Amino acid sequence: MAACIFCRIIKGEIPSLKIFESEKTLAFLDIGPLSKGHSLVIPKYHGAKLHDVPDDQLHEVLSIAKRIAIAQGLQDYNILQNNGKIAHQQVDHVHFHVIPKPNETEGLGISWPTKEVDKSELQALLEDIKSKI
Amino acid sequence: MAACIFCRIIKGEIPSLKIFESEKTLAFLDIGPLSKGHSLVIPKYHGAKLHDVPDDQLHEVLSIAKRIAIAQGLQDYNILQNNGKIAHQQVDHVHFHVIPKPNETEGLGISWPTKEVDKSELQALLEDIKSKI
Repeated sequence: MAACIFCRIIKGEIPSLKIFESEKTLAFLDIGPLSKGHSLVIPKYHGAKLHDVPDDQLHEVLSIAKRIAIAQGLQDYNILQNNGKIAHQQVDHVHFHVIPKPNETEGLGISWPTKEVDKSELQALLEDIKSKI
Repeated sequence: MAACIFCRIIKGEIPSLKIFESEKTLAFLDIGPLSKGHSLVIPKYHGAKLHDVPDDQLHEVLSIAKRIAIAQGLQDYNILQNNGKIAHQQVDHVHFHVIPKPNETEGLGISWPTKEVDKSELQALLEDIKSKI
């Protein structure tokens, strides 16, 4: 993907603050961080959304995210991967945020508007998902 | 962990709306969903936070999350894993949320308070993390 900014970072056409690199995975500091140490872990394979990336290109991602958390001695942090503009995705190449949460104001802001759901509705949904998985 | 609610779900002591199960991984519907189809994927290994779980217990997690998204035909969704109360973790057993984002009001609410950061500060941080990874 010639125009993809993360593909260009992978190719070295655009500089990045590279933390880790392997055959399939790259990790670098986010230059617009939500908190100190905010990092991105990306598969080198270009897929816009998680469901576009083959499983074998994803296996390392969580291990690297873990290593970044451990290297920083993090205890409180969020791992976040957004799919779609409405879900806050800003670059159309799958990326996993590692976002330290040092206090209430810095880091990821989350709101959690739970819904009341009928048990029988959930059961019907479950059967539907299970039939398609 | 006798008292852990997710360990009890894994053991079958507490019922769950189970989507998928393998030797190392369990997926089930969240009974307090943020949107229709909100699911959880958990390693069976008990670790409170991501950095507590061995790599080999994590390898399937993203593949299963993907399969849940595909089974529902999702295009817009968030994958989220929280570590620590301040980062919105509510059960102390690592869990990955798959949260459909059907519209602005349902699903995960995100705020993104980016910080201005000095380039040289980022460079120093990078060197520090690289030395520890």
